[in-house]
Amino acid sequence: MSRPLRIAAWQCPSRPGDVAGNLARLDAACARAAGEGADVLVTPEMFVTGYDIGAARTRELAEPADGPIFHAVAALTRRHGVAVVYGYPEALEGGGIANAAQLIDDGWAVGGHRKAHLFGGLDSERFVPAVERPATFELRGRRVGILICYDVEFPEAVRALALAGAEAVLVPTANMVPYEIVSEVVVRARAYENGVTVAYANYCGTEGDQAYAGLSTICGPDGAVLGLAPAEGEQLIVADAAGQRAPYLRDRRGDLYD
Amino acid sequence: MSRPLRIAAWQCPSRPGDVAGNLARLDAACARAAGEGADVLVTPEMFVTGYDIGAARTRELAEPADGPIFHAVAALTRRHGVAVVYGYPEALEGGGIANAAQLIDDGWAVGGHRKAHLFGGLDSERFVPAVERPATFELRGRRVGILICYDVEFPEAVRALALAGAEAVLVPTANMVPYEIVSEVVVRARAYENGVTVAYANYCGTEGDQAYAGLSTICGPDGAVLGLAPAEGEQLIVADAAGQRAPYLRDRRGDLYD
Repeated sequence: MSRPLRIAAWQCPSRPGDVAGNLARLDAACARAAGEGADVLVTPEMFVTGYDIGAARTRELAEPADGPIFHAVAALTRRHGVAVVYGYPEALEGGGIANAAQLIDDGWAVGGHRKAHLFGGLDSERFVPAVERPATFELRGRRVGILICYDVEFPEAVRALALAGAEAVLVPTANMVPYEIVSEVVVRARAYENGVTVAYANYCGTEGDQAYAGLSTICGPDGAVLGLAPAEGEQLIVADAAGQRAPYLRDRRGDLYD
Repeated sequence: MSRPLRIAAWQCPSRPGDVAGNLARLDAACARAAGEGADVLVTPEMFVTGYDIGAARTRELAEPADGPIFHAVAALTRRHGVAVVYGYPEALEGGGIANAAQLIDDGWAVGGHRKAHLFGGLDSERFVPAVERPATFELRGRRVGILICYDVEFPEAVRALALAGAEAVLVPTANMVPYEIVSEVVVRARAYENGVTVAYANYCGTEGDQAYAGLSTICGPDGAVLGLAPAEGEQLIVADAAGQRAPYLRDRRGDLYD
C-alpha cells in the first residue's frame, strides 16, 4: 500500500474571462499547495476561464485538451511538483464544446473528464454532455477519478468510480446558493456510502448572476469531514486520502440492481 | 394529484421476545398516530419480536406473512384507521427465515419487503437475503416502497424505488451507535438525491449488546429534515409526504450507468 494522497481543494472567487490572470493565481495556489505537502490541487469548475461566461465567450475560449491552457498548467505542475485538476471549455473534434476537467502531473496529462450531467440551461446552452462513463486514473500510486459539479450529486457516478477502484474522487464545482446541502450532506454521503475520499472545490463570491456557496469540503471514507471551507472567502483545505473502506462495496447487491 | 400521505415514524425501545407486549404497545401507538391524522405508522426493525433476539428465538418466533402476527396487526389497522409497517422474522417456504417488513392497511396486506442487504453476522447468522428487487405499492393513492435498515444505506435501493414511482420510502431500522451518520446524513441524502420522502423509524435505548442511536427522522424530497427524534427517548414524529421532486430522476444518465 502506498502512502496516502494529500489533496488540496482550493476555494476562490471566479475571475471570468481572465485566462492569464487565472493562470497567475493558479501559480500562487500551486506554491501554497506545495508548501502544504499536497500531491494534487483541485480547482473550481472551469477555473481557467470562469464558469458563467456566456455562450460566445465559452466558444471563444474553448480549446482542445492539448491546447495552450494545457501547456501553461503543465508547466506549473512541473515547477511546483504538484498535480493539478483544472476546468476549461474543451473544443471537441465534432465542433461541440464540453465542460471539461483535466488532471496533469509533472507536465503530463494523467486523465480527464467531461461533465456528464448538465445543470439546466447554464450548461445545456453551451455544452454537449459526456458520452463516456467516468474513468479512473493512477496518480502517484493511488487510483482517482474526476467528476464535475452536478455529476457528484448522482450516486451512480461516484459508485461507478469506486467500483472501478477509485480511492479518491476529485470534484471541481460551481455550486450556488441555496444548494449548500450538496456540500454539507450529499458530498459527505457520497464519501461514506462508497468508502472513498471526495474533494469538492467550489467558488466563493459572485460571478455575474451567480452567488456561489463556498463550503468547499474534503470528506473521508468513513464520512468524516476532513476539511470544510467557510461560505465566504478564499481558502485552501488540505487532507490525506486513505484507501477505500470496504463495507458498502462488499455488501452491495449487484445481482439485484446492476 | 391526491393529498399528501401523512407518515408517523415511531421511535421506541425494543422489548425483545415479548410479542404480546409489543402488540399492546403498537395498539397504543396506532391510537396516537391516528390522533395526529397519520395515514401510516412506521415501526422499528423487527418491532413485533425485537431485533437482537438470537438465532433460536428468531426461529421460534418466525411465522409466514399471513400468520398470527399479521392477523393481530391487521385488526389494529382496522380499529384505528391507520396503516402500519411492522417488522418480523418471516418463515419462508424453503425453511429459511427473512428479516421482513409488511405494510397493512384496513386489515389488508398492501405489500412487503425482505431485507436485501444483511448487516454482518447479526443478520447473516439468522436470515437469508432477499432475492427480489424492492417493489412499490399503492397506499391511499400514493406510491410507496419499503426498505429495512442497512438497505437504505445503498443508493441503488432507494433509486430503484424512486424510478419505480415511489413518492415515499418507509424504513424500519435498528441503527446502533456510532452510526448516527446514517440518520443525520445518509437518509437525508437519499431523500434529496431521489426527490422522495424517506421515513426512518429507529429504536432508542439498549437491547442486549446493542445500543441504539435513536435519531429517527423523516426527510422531504428537497432534503429538508421534516422530523427528527432525539438520540434518547420514545417519540412519534409526523410529517406529510408530497409527490416526487423531479430534477435528479429527470437528469440522471441511465445511458451511461444502467
